[in-house]
Amino acid sequence: MTTSSFETKLNDFKHYLKKMKSYEEAVGLIYWDMRTGAPRKGIATRSEVVGELSGELFKMSVSDEMGAFLDYFASPEVNDRLDPLYRKIVSECRKEYDRSKKIPPKRYQEYVVLTSQSEAAWEAAKEQADFAGFQPYLEKIVDMNLEFIDLWGYKGHKYNTLLDMYEPGMTVEKLDQVFGALREKVVPLLTAIQSSPHKPDTSFLKQEFDKEKQKRFSLYILEQMGYDFEAGRLDETVHPFATGLNPGDVRITTRYLPDDVNSALFGTIHEGGHALYEQNISPDLIGTPLCTGTSMGIHESQSRFWENMIGRSRPFWTQYYGKLQNNYPGQFDHVAMEDFYRATNEVKPSLIRIEADELTYNLHIMVRYEIEKALFSGSVKVADLPEIWNEKYRDYLGVVPAHNGEGVLQDVHWSGGAFGYFPSYALGNMYAAQIMRTLRQDLDLDALIREGNLHPIKDWLTDKIYRHGKSLTPTEIITQVTGEELNPDYLVDYLREKYSDIYRL
Amino acid sequence: MTTSSFETKLNDFKHYLKKMKSYEEAVGLIYWDMRTGAPRKGIATRSEVVGELSGELFKMSVSDEMGAFLDYFASPEVNDRLDPLYRKIVSECRKEYDRSKKIPPKRYQEYVVLTSQSEAAWEAAKEQADFAGFQPYLEKIVDMNLEFIDLWGYKGHKYNTLLDMYEPGMTVEKLDQVFGALREKVVPLLTAIQSSPHKPDTSFLKQEFDKEKQKRFSLYILEQMGYDFEAGRLDETVHPFATGLNPGDVRITTRYLPDDVNSALFGTIHEGGHALYEQNISPDLIGTPLCTGTSMGIHESQSRFWENMIGRSRPFWTQYYGKLQNNYPGQFDHVAMEDFYRATNEVKPSLIRIEADELTYNLHIMVRYEIEKALFSGSVKVADLPEIWNEKYRDYLGVVPAHNGEGVLQDVHWSGGAFGYFPSYALGNMYAAQIMRTLRQDLDLDALIREGNLHPIKDWLTDKIYRHGKSLTPTEIITQVTGEELNPDYLVDYLREKYSDIYRL
Repeated sequence: MTTSSFETKLNDFKHYLKKMKSYEEAVGLIYWDMRTGAPRKGIATRSEVVGELSGELFKMSVSDEMGAFLDYFASPEVNDRLDPLYRKIVSECRKEYDRSKKIPPKRYQEYVVLTSQSEAAWEAAKEQADFAGFQPYLEKIVDMNLEFIDLWGYKGHKYNTLLDMYEPGMTVEKLDQVFGALREKVVPLLTAIQSSPHKPDTSFLKQEFDKEKQKRFSLYILEQMGYDFEAGRLDETVHPFATGLNPGDVRITTRYLPDDVNSALFGTIHEGGHALYEQNISPDLIGTPLCTGTSMGIHESQSRFWENMIGRSRPFWTQYYGKLQNNYPGQFDHVAMEDFYRATNEVKPSLIRIEADELTYNLHIMVRYEIEKALFSGSVKVADLPEIWNEKYRDYLGVVPAHNGEGVLQDVHWSGGAFGYFPSYALGNMYAAQIMRTLRQDLDLDALIREGNLHPIKDWLTDKIYRHGKSLTPTEIITQVTGEELNPDYLVDYLREKYSDIYRL
Repeated sequence: MTTSSFETKLNDFKHYLKKMKSYEEAVGLIYWDMRTGAPRKGIATRSEVVGELSGELFKMSVSDEMGAFLDYFASPEVNDRLDPLYRKIVSECRKEYDRSKKIPPKRYQEYVVLTSQSEAAWEAAKEQADFAGFQPYLEKIVDMNLEFIDLWGYKGHKYNTLLDMYEPGMTVEKLDQVFGALREKVVPLLTAIQSSPHKPDTSFLKQEFDKEKQKRFSLYILEQMGYDFEAGRLDETVHPFATGLNPGDVRITTRYLPDDVNSALFGTIHEGGHALYEQNISPDLIGTPLCTGTSMGIHESQSRFWENMIGRSRPFWTQYYGKLQNNYPGQFDHVAMEDFYRATNEVKPSLIRIEADELTYNLHIMVRYEIEKALFSGSVKVADLPEIWNEKYRDYLGVVPAHNGEGVLQDVHWSGGAFGYFPSYALGNMYAAQIMRTLRQDLDLDALIREGNLHPIKDWLTDKIYRHGKSLTPTEIITQVTGEELNPDYLVDYLREKYSDIYRL
């Protein structure tokens, strides 16, 4: 092996990866466009474009060429010459390559068709609260996932293999422990809150709010957060999302409800948190598979940190409540800041996950986690899900769905085969609280927020988390930043302190 | 050869073409996005995505696989079994394949780099009216085009090979004839107009016009034309354009000038004309290289037909002037419809092509045509262009640029190597007038416009032109529709009649 052959090979590999990233970016832009305003009649043809480009991308990830690159860079004397970044990249590509290679292409194709049909079936079933219409699809999806898990291999619980796709390294053993600890503290806290006579008045949150004013305030807060409008844009969609096409183009969307002052605002801050992560990935990672967030859990920790720990904090409203009052002249004249703050943090067990407050949200996730775990251990059957769902909601949240549309059918995830995704949301809450505790050792968080000086917070997070993209694992991130592995106690402490104050417990 | 092998091959070929069309559509969407609001900081990476996808598309058009398809379908016994549509498709692909194959890839790559550098150089040169800064680029571009023409081959004049790229079948011989005839009639008409004492008052066209009102009126007229908003959308850009991504997604843009009532409106109608063409291509052609307009000239005939023959006609304003008055309350109270109509059709020789009126526009094109022809016959040198340009402007239009920025440097086309493109604009005017004359035999055009009943016009054009896409050549289209080849007399008659009336000649 000569120097020049190594360098040529590495260069070819970089080009190959950049090409893959280009396809990914093109597909990302097409999806953004489809959701934000592509004309209806062009969608059928556009979907074929997506199929074509995604198919090519998949082929590239499992091609003989990719295989040859990976074999070449795996040999010890070559691997030693790679810098740590490229060693990481090679191992990421290998993971992806092995995972994809183990599924027979024909079987994978069948799965793609199944999940796309299944999403349509789920939509109709949810609309009609008809679980039976969705059940056969869900059964097939679970069966195929079990088949794939056998092909991929697993350690301990079969569900671990699915968890690893969204949160590398996460296991049932770890989740049982952290969710157990969390539940043990959250349930009594919820009981105490429910018995408190000091309930916030929330009536003033529901008024008519002009859309242009909502938009103006959302844009203002985004700008305060340090969202870079030269590297992104805000649009309107039914389901808000953030998409990082490249670090110079990270777009977010929100939804304006005409009678709710908070929905668009907190939606924007949430997606803005995701966007800050993607905008601040190091330029060195552009064009590589590491130019993205490290895991769903860490990503969600950032959206939730900005939405809840900052956006729903008292210092935040100390700074911004006057601005909100000015933004909606006459609509909050007789509402004190403290009352607005308390209303914005109302805790109330409910049926729908995406409408849940900061405290009960974790219980919604635990229900789903318990069910997914049981499905993949074989201890429950798909047919029994509606009953189990309702039981667990009674058990965890004290509420029972009137029908499956607001119960087991409420989320899109399972229809697309995304088992193992739900825990990310609760992990995000736990990571966020743990990271905040370290952040407070370096910065006077409350003072900065109270002064409306949010950029140092963004800079701290960039240094500790954002810039690394996927070059560190979630475990490496949380350990490097906080000095310990995931620990649910910080979330418990944070919730206890916040709600004891609000509900005067 | 068995039936099944033919059918398999044909099927594979269809998939191959569809894949190419998918790449083209993705690139089209990326360009649309870049122009309508992609964040600045993402552009560098996005340009690489475009490079990647365009590169793949080019490779597919000249691949061994494509070569094998074309050879297979060229053999007489196989070719006979193709339906006429696929026979046409095969011959289109062959033309493209041969053209691309004849240029050494390295040379082509150099040309791509040169033209992209050249566009930047042109922008700076135009800004500073500095022809010397652009001259070396233009010289190289002309030289490389001459080199390519030798590789491609040519019949008669070398320039014919360039003309054919935009207007298949068009030649210097034909253009000399039609432009000669046109000039012979247009110049005396212009002289007569300039001597007429009956000049329209245009002062009221320049007022402050609210952007939202301009937009509302533009959308209203688009809807009247039969533009399908479920298969398109209207956005705002500095340079208006239309882009047909697929027939179900044909987007247009316009530009709102704050002090001009006509600019955005006629820009929208113009792009709307292009869009009607693309929206109404037969669904049978989707996914094939024939799913586009047949030539630049025919395309331009449609934008100009809607913009000028309809939009600047008296029947149009008979119907829509009241609506315009209502759209801008108080701003046209004291302007009679007839005065508005005459103002909108003012003829005035000017320096800038894109601001020219319907009559003198053709003279701007002839200047460029004469220059391009001379460049490729070798009778003039790039260095002499500023002087020749100014001479020709004096000769054709009676005006002389004060500097090269408003003279020879005004258009972007040459900097990108688009020689042979300019004639399309004047061809469009001639085609449009010729088609209108046939249309009048079938429909009472004036009455339909006067009633605001434009859809039958769109339907007639769809039947005769739009639905065929590129499955007929421009010559086939014009001959089938009008019964004769391109004939400049119809444009002359139209202009003479229109302006004799307006200027009372």
